[in-house]
Amino acid sequence: MKTRAAVAFEAKRPLEIVEVDLEGPRAGEVLIEIKATGVCHTDAYTLDGLDSEGIFPSILGHEGAGVVVEVGPGVTSLAVGDHVIPLYTPECRQCKSCLSRKTNLCTSIRSTQGKGLMPDGTSRFSYKGQAIAHYMGCSTFSNYTVLPEIAVAKIRKDAPFDKACYIGCGVTTGVGAVVNTAKVEPGANAVVFGLGGIGLNVIQGLKLVGADMIVGVDINADKEEWGRRFGMTHFVNPKDVSDVVAHLVELTGGGADYTFDCTGNTVVMRQALEACHRGWGESIVIGVAEAGKEISTRPFQLVTGRVWKGSAFGGARGRTDTPKIVDWYMDGKIEIDPMITHTLPLERINEAFDLMHEGKSIRSVIVF
Amino acid sequence: MKTRAAVAFEAKRPLEIVEVDLEGPRAGEVLIEIKATGVCHTDAYTLDGLDSEGIFPSILGHEGAGVVVEVGPGVTSLAVGDHVIPLYTPECRQCKSCLSRKTNLCTSIRSTQGKGLMPDGTSRFSYKGQAIAHYMGCSTFSNYTVLPEIAVAKIRKDAPFDKACYIGCGVTTGVGAVVNTAKVEPGANAVVFGLGGIGLNVIQGLKLVGADMIVGVDINADKEEWGRRFGMTHFVNPKDVSDVVAHLVELTGGGADYTFDCTGNTVVMRQALEACHRGWGESIVIGVAEAGKEISTRPFQLVTGRVWKGSAFGGARGRTDTPKIVDWYMDGKIEIDPMITHTLPLERINEAFDLMHEGKSIRSVIVF
Repeated sequence: MKTRAAVAFEAKRPLEIVEVDLEGPRAGEVLIEIKATGVCHTDAYTLDGLDSEGIFPSILGHEGAGVVVEVGPGVTSLAVGDHVIPLYTPECRQCKSCLSRKTNLCTSIRSTQGKGLMPDGTSRFSYKGQAIAHYMGCSTFSNYTVLPEIAVAKIRKDAPFDKACYIGCGVTTGVGAVVNTAKVEPGANAVVFGLGGIGLNVIQGLKLVGADMIVGVDINADKEEWGRRFGMTHFVNPKDVSDVVAHLVELTGGGADYTFDCTGNTVVMRQALEACHRGWGESIVIGVAEAGKEISTRPFQLVTGRVWKGSAFGGARGRTDTPKIVDWYMDGKIEIDPMITHTLPLERINEAFDLMHEGKSIRSVIVF
Repeated sequence: MKTRAAVAFEAKRPLEIVEVDLEGPRAGEVLIEIKATGVCHTDAYTLDGLDSEGIFPSILGHEGAGVVVEVGPGVTSLAVGDHVIPLYTPECRQCKSCLSRKTNLCTSIRSTQGKGLMPDGTSRFSYKGQAIAHYMGCSTFSNYTVLPEIAVAKIRKDAPFDKACYIGCGVTTGVGAVVNTAKVEPGANAVVFGLGGIGLNVIQGLKLVGADMIVGVDINADKEEWGRRFGMTHFVNPKDVSDVVAHLVELTGGGADYTFDCTGNTVVMRQALEACHRGWGESIVIGVAEAGKEISTRPFQLVTGRVWKGSAFGGARGRTDTPKIVDWYMDGKIEIDPMITHTLPLERINEAFDLMHEGKSIRSVIVF
């Protein structure tokens, strides 16, 4: 079949909207009509050529929502008409990782996904006879896309696509880091570094679980209003204090129970660890750092009880946990609508990248 | 009263055995007759002048066992004749740390202890009219010493002093890191870096909790026999492999569930983290690093599920958990006797330091 898609033909060049060829689903695969997709920093990271493993040409996009329109042989958990969210972190429920009960990082199709291919080692997309790579196993910048059954979360039908798509990455990454990775308890004090889309979702996750003090840290004073909108109780601008770590330790009465880095800056990651309370404070790295950058600290920070960990896709098991977060949104436990600052048609997708780079959007969503 | 003690008059000079003056216990304090004390690397670290916060003159020693011979006013939990282990990590059961249920690092007397003083801000020791500092709140290189009640663990009377003293530091640090800090589960795969006294106690802790694969790593091939003696199942000498992390990841089928650094070397600490399994592997820093040294890694290691933490005094609450470890020893669940390679009288305490520096002892114990 033919489908309209925004194709990344080369790094550092705008996406081009073209008609590409798409093969139907093979065994264990489903064809999905994408109804809406967010544009995320990770897409920009790849498009800007910063990801050394980026593949071109490819169809980017990994934060979508849509409807199953065809199922391949052997598919049992999905049917035509199901509303779904594509998953860049699949959940096969069979591999060592899924069976460990300790991680959401299913490894069953990792090697082919990393190469931009379906699990059988081929691509379903092509343009003028040349294969186009899949991206993060999703390629939601195409109106139609094919995914393995294990990488698709079935969600309720009353959730609006143009909001539910954000649960495919940003919402789950932030809220899940609080709920699944840190397992923050009611009454805890927490500090969130970086109040972009992920940071705001961490904040609303902290509010959801009943944290007491929710401190937001950002060098952009305009973010204070955004943070307070979602439950932030205190705001710290590092530009206004001489030593941000000492300031935060004092503000939290000895250090935070939990800190979250949502900046990707390795200097900030260290501050986040060192702002933790002696004895038990845990720091969660969420942000993706520049290639080659490293985090450092004195080991004394760990020996005296601080814990350094990280979170990917909010520690959420894609098929099991993502539908629950859709429920939380529909039940009003978390908010999404105010974070979707821009909604654009596919033809204007390059504007969404511009808005992100200019810091004008929290999240832009493309509707097909 | 007068008591015989090995005094550290200056850094980098042998201890001197002299008669010092000791004041009796004040309110909330007890006088203890030390029957035996281990000589630990931490004592040497201070004596060698490597600890920038080291105080001289002082009476070192923090790994002792003895008998209560006098109690000060208000002491309720201890009585004359009780067998005890002095605690460099007290347990007041009242401070924010003790009440957090998340750490063993009681903070109630931290500031005075760090200054070599009793909680009331004075020293009980003097020599020729000059005050001598306490050390780690214990000063077990003195035949008699005074401690706060909250820094004394009461143990069973049938435990031999010359073995139980080792539970005051090394045994609890190693076994506790497994049991309390990492909470290793049966069937886990673990790697222990550094097979000195702490490493061997980590190994027997792993055996105690039913770990499957217990890999020991040391650049000294002679340590293999020691490791196997306490439950090590595999030995790796980094000198024999080109890439120790890659080798360990392969050996453990993808990385260890738990790794323990018992070297104090920050390069090894990084290897220990990176030898952990993607998704859930936890690395525990036990070793004390040189002043100024830092640990580093790529944040990707954390984002993909590895956890970096530390352990001090094995995460054990001194008064609650130490007596249980004495029970484990008396019940044969853990071994101590073979690790006590040398037993010496106080007059030969400097030989114990020499044996340690020469790598000839696992643990030397001084008996009074």
